[in-house]
Amino acid sequence: MKIAIDAMGGDHAPKEIVLGALKAVETFDSLEITLVGDEAKIREFLPNENNAITILHTDEKITSDDEPVKAVRRKKKASLVLMANEVKEGNADACISAGNTGALMSAGLFVIGRMKGIDRPALSPTLPTTNGDGFLLLDVGANVDAKAQHLMQYGIMGSIYMEKVRQIDKPRVGLLNVGTENGKGNDLTKKAFDLLATAPVNFIGNVEARDLLEGAADVVVTDGFSGNVALKTIEGTALTLFSMLKEKFMSNTKTKIAAALAKNELRGLKDQLDYSEYGGAALFGLKAPVIKAHGSSNSRAIYSAIQQTIHIVDKEVISKIEAEVKHLPKQGEE
Amino acid sequence: MKIAIDAMGGDHAPKEIVLGALKAVETFDSLEITLVGDEAKIREFLPNENNAITILHTDEKITSDDEPVKAVRRKKKASLVLMANEVKEGNADACISAGNTGALMSAGLFVIGRMKGIDRPALSPTLPTTNGDGFLLLDVGANVDAKAQHLMQYGIMGSIYMEKVRQIDKPRVGLLNVGTENGKGNDLTKKAFDLLATAPVNFIGNVEARDLLEGAADVVVTDGFSGNVALKTIEGTALTLFSMLKEKFMSNTKTKIAAALAKNELRGLKDQLDYSEYGGAALFGLKAPVIKAHGSSNSRAIYSAIQQTIHIVDKEVISKIEAEVKHLPKQGEE
Repeated sequence: MKIAIDAMGGDHAPKEIVLGALKAVETFDSLEITLVGDEAKIREFLPNENNAITILHTDEKITSDDEPVKAVRRKKKASLVLMANEVKEGNADACISAGNTGALMSAGLFVIGRMKGIDRPALSPTLPTTNGDGFLLLDVGANVDAKAQHLMQYGIMGSIYMEKVRQIDKPRVGLLNVGTENGKGNDLTKKAFDLLATAPVNFIGNVEARDLLEGAADVVVTDGFSGNVALKTIEGTALTLFSMLKEKFMSNTKTKIAAALAKNELRGLKDQLDYSEYGGAALFGLKAPVIKAHGSSNSRAIYSAIQQTIHIVDKEVISKIEAEVKHLPKQGEE
Repeated sequence: MKIAIDAMGGDHAPKEIVLGALKAVETFDSLEITLVGDEAKIREFLPNENNAITILHTDEKITSDDEPVKAVRRKKKASLVLMANEVKEGNADACISAGNTGALMSAGLFVIGRMKGIDRPALSPTLPTTNGDGFLLLDVGANVDAKAQHLMQYGIMGSIYMEKVRQIDKPRVGLLNVGTENGKGNDLTKKAFDLLATAPVNFIGNVEARDLLEGAADVVVTDGFSGNVALKTIEGTALTLFSMLKEKFMSNTKTKIAAALAKNELRGLKDQLDYSEYGGAALFGLKAPVIKAHGSSNSRAIYSAIQQTIHIVDKEVISKIEAEVKHLPKQGEE
């Protein structure tokens, strides 16, 4: 199996990307990685020849400030674009970038292309739950003006991923909504509810944002706008609480002693919420696996994303999604 | 000033409602309260005659399980409906309920009525920020299929409230969006951005959900669906984190000692996030102030909601909103 990785994307590129890749090829036999980016900079962290790692050199890269669609169209030699091209040309089975999310979505659409039967790709991170299982949230922003049929397709894609890769039997698919009762919601969720009820998934109905981290569903389906709001609200609330907690613990001698006594357990709490452990966010609905690693990824997060990508390829998630959506009745809208 | 209060609404009714009302009339001279509900049950917590408190008796009430619109139409003698009627008849200046949110919105619309110039009322809680100022989020679910012009009206209503009641000079009005750059978002937010830019408010552009608790804006405008998701995600994430934290502190002797040492500071943290301190959620856009207190309100939360309501009446927030929206150009849509 061969995976192409954008060595220049993310806050800690190329160092952490290269280190994560190195660890992965040490762990997984028969894994080959193509690192796309500035060869000299990559070599700094890759001193010896490594048979499992190839470098595809380019000077150009897309930054986080670049306007996604324009950047992908104009910077034809950017590491992120060349990475997607490796997949398109059949030189790689899948690709991973920790860089500009919008540019990765654009490259996925324009270079790799949309899967037949899927109208819109969905960006799908796995978020933590208190029991450690995690849940898949899709979409978190690939498609901010979603239609009901898109949400149904998200449910199918998410369900296949959670079943095949995370080995959850009959994943519970929930629709993010303003209340749990049937009939709740806006026009979009009311229509999506009816479609999901007939879809080939284990649809459990509406779930509320309040219950997400408690594991209300294995797959939570929503439009890209609301999903983005939910994701960033979870992140923001957790970060704010941790920084307030830290401040409280630093406030006097007694609390400093308390912090020292509970140090290990408190660190465990932070790890429990660290969703890089679950890998990156897959961009489902394309012809091949495209994985967005978190922008602040360290080598461990890159390693997790590679591991996740290997599972997606091994379990043939893409072809299984393709086979499932082929049977769907055509929707009038789009 | 006279305020009508639904004595039967909320998880701890009528006890905590009555105790909160008692404290308020003791504190504020010239405040009169009408408690609407079961007289015998109310009297249990109101042993002595109190000149400032009147009871309007009724046996009927709306429960949290009742379907809101039907309940308001059919249970014409429910405490919540009679409370709204007191405002309609001019017997009260404003009203407060901790009961069924949907029913309160319905009673507000059907009994009290919409303000001229406002297309849709918005439910508007004040949420905590790390610096203690709090921010107003609207709408959190009164109108789940909002149009751009509604969002602009929310901005105006929220701005007047924050300026007059919470005495913030030129409140910063932000639009909840998936990115901070101009031009980001879905159809709705792109249109709302343009309208807010011309509205008589201090519009600071897009804000992201990640930055809400850090005080990114004083007034955050969004559609009722996304606002509901944001509100419930904040609540859910905070609750989950607190329960995980509690579990960590109970895990062994060392952590139990740590918990005892940091007890006061940790309690302070919880108080900092307790948004009942800021009062209830106002339902703006009606002809009179209608306040939704949290369902789990204790007497202190009810007292806060009463205090907030007094300010809204005193500062003539409703007539100021009315005067402002009168000058708005008519929008084609609705």
